[in-house]
Amino acid sequence: MVDISRGSALGASGASELFQLLRDGRPRTRAGLASSTGLARSTVAARVDELLALGLITAVGDAESTGGRPASQFALNPAARVVLAADLGASHATLAITDLAGSILVEHNEPIDIAEGPEHVLGWLVDSGRRLLDELGRDRRDLVAIGIGVPGPVQHDTGQPVNPPIMPGWDRFDVPGWVQQHLEVPVLVDNDVNIMALGERAVAWPAEEHLVFVKVATGIGSGIISGGLLQRGALGIAGDIGHVRVARGGDVPCHCGNRGCLEALASGPALARDLRAAGVDVHSGGDVVELVKRGHLEAIQAVRQAGRDIGEVLTACVSLMNPSVIAIGGSMARAGEHLLAGVREVVYTRSMPIATEHLSIVQSAAAADAAVIGASMLAIHHVLSPEGIDDLAAR
Amino acid sequence: MVDISRGSALGASGASELFQLLRDGRPRTRAGLASSTGLARSTVAARVDELLALGLITAVGDAESTGGRPASQFALNPAARVVLAADLGASHATLAITDLAGSILVEHNEPIDIAEGPEHVLGWLVDSGRRLLDELGRDRRDLVAIGIGVPGPVQHDTGQPVNPPIMPGWDRFDVPGWVQQHLEVPVLVDNDVNIMALGERAVAWPAEEHLVFVKVATGIGSGIISGGLLQRGALGIAGDIGHVRVARGGDVPCHCGNRGCLEALASGPALARDLRAAGVDVHSGGDVVELVKRGHLEAIQAVRQAGRDIGEVLTACVSLMNPSVIAIGGSMARAGEHLLAGVREVVYTRSMPIATEHLSIVQSAAAADAAVIGASMLAIHHVLSPEGIDDLAAR
Repeated sequence: MVDISRGSALGASGASELFQLLRDGRPRTRAGLASSTGLARSTVAARVDELLALGLITAVGDAESTGGRPASQFALNPAARVVLAADLGASHATLAITDLAGSILVEHNEPIDIAEGPEHVLGWLVDSGRRLLDELGRDRRDLVAIGIGVPGPVQHDTGQPVNPPIMPGWDRFDVPGWVQQHLEVPVLVDNDVNIMALGERAVAWPAEEHLVFVKVATGIGSGIISGGLLQRGALGIAGDIGHVRVARGGDVPCHCGNRGCLEALASGPALARDLRAAGVDVHSGGDVVELVKRGHLEAIQAVRQAGRDIGEVLTACVSLMNPSVIAIGGSMARAGEHLLAGVREVVYTRSMPIATEHLSIVQSAAAADAAVIGASMLAIHHVLSPEGIDDLAAR
Repeated sequence: MVDISRGSALGASGASELFQLLRDGRPRTRAGLASSTGLARSTVAARVDELLALGLITAVGDAESTGGRPASQFALNPAARVVLAADLGASHATLAITDLAGSILVEHNEPIDIAEGPEHVLGWLVDSGRRLLDELGRDRRDLVAIGIGVPGPVQHDTGQPVNPPIMPGWDRFDVPGWVQQHLEVPVLVDNDVNIMALGERAVAWPAEEHLVFVKVATGIGSGIISGGLLQRGALGIAGDIGHVRVARGGDVPCHCGNRGCLEALASGPALARDLRAAGVDVHSGGDVVELVKRGHLEAIQAVRQAGRDIGEVLTACVSLMNPSVIAIGGSMARAGEHLLAGVREVVYTRSMPIATEHLSIVQSAAAADAAVIGASMLAIHHVLSPEGIDDLAAR
């Protein structure tokens, strides 16, 4: 997205590298920046001035001085720019504009039909994004990136959905290219569960480097952060746990064509199907959650068993990835402790003690906002990278 | 390991950063380096001179010129320094000295007993390492780092084994600290399967960023490279697949205290136990491999079933990590295609087509050298990092 043939106003390995130190939000003096970077005081002073001129950093009060006049301190100015974050689901979408710290400034929810195709849905996204900017009273030039989550596999480096089963018309569609015809900023696209993992981490576990987010809804998937980085795998489909076979699976057919998959046993529709077969009047995963909340015994038992099935697959995940946090989200997680109890029962029984000694298995804290905050993180991470800052400076 | 309070001869963000471009071995001109880094020609020239003086790069012939005299090209000089690589097993050890490209210059194998404790084993390592340097006729100051693989979990940042089941006396032992009393260079320690993954990648798949190495021997474990990086997990025990339950596991007791673990079904000792119970005269996994090589039908069937059990766990791994390569190594892999056939049968049947379309499941190419080459890679990666190069320059 960055044209490296054109010069950057900051110069390569210039102010953008200095900014990398400041993006954590911690205030630093010019002297502190000079000693951290080994750069000359005069160089640091010039680069700080460039970043101040761009509005990316701001003076934040004075450091305690050891004598003489106090030294000014500088830190990231999260209000300097905004990003547009979109969580596109099968039947609804959430848009938000956030600052550079990921705080939501304005949010908008609306039913959509992802099957209406990319031009329709992305057209809506562009129009709504512009309107939200206007509502906020922000200049369009303040928008510096767009992060989009979609309900299917994405080739992250091109931003193209790849064989997404519930997104007809989106296969290999150039999402960034289309959006950039209308809003000329970097556009980052990823799978919805991946961005939920980013959002959950940002909201509840900023210091954790090994976190697995599990979405239990119409489907079951996971987003894996390991070594501090989202793991997308060779083709961008890492974390796709819905079609791992579970012990209880037997011959239960799955829509993928195989049998005994986790998703065929423990997803919302699977629970509704099994309860309906047992004579309970339910039509969807949402109905099952409502029954659980009202204390319906069979529904509670079904949800707990789904938790055990999910736990079986997560036991393999714990052995493979050795995470410190597993967060369970998605619409079925609203069934609360019953789902979590089943997961914990199996993971804690079946894992090596050393792997679970420091493992937290918890309900998603970001909940319904996980995806939109994660989409914002995806965009912010790009904007604040050395490449992104050089790009901003060159605009 | 680097004392940042002392000045580096190269200066912070100086020649060591330039060197990061050159460490891939590809020759570059001063002009090429200037345009890649945005540094002034005069700065590049000075830094190239520093790296030449250290011997870390060397002139490698002239670039084709567009007129005028040809421009000199520079590249990593792998012969400049050496590292000591050690693969410590339960009952044998391999030591090697390699150059900075990981090529083995001299190698030595010897039976050891890891249970004799760290001071005994590491004392042997130090003595043997010095002797190998003398054999090569290299000055001891040419040794710039040591990489060590051990048969148990390791806290990678401290280099301390943590509760290693078959390494009595090693728990929390400060391996780097002890070795550095005798050889004053950085010492990197990791689990043997992790370094085998690094070695396998270096030997056979240098361009792959998503590789899983599975060691099938007395135990079963894996080393996971994802996004180009070894994934160690929160506590350094990622990849520990030996104690994931498999469908065929039932009540078979495992030495970990649980039942039905992969290792209790598909490891060398498990196969020997089951064949012995069926009246076959075998005492070890090695005996089983010999029988397979002689075409013994029951042994072949047992090994193929072990492959299926391993494949069952790897199916979860494929869904979670979406690797492009799974390499099977360890002593039982010498049983050849029979083990591999069982793995492939289950992984290709049970995985989503998109996940296996570009997945290679192969026998380890590095074979017996995987660990020692991986230990060398661990050391070289540290030495050639910005921190490592600054450290070298300051010596």
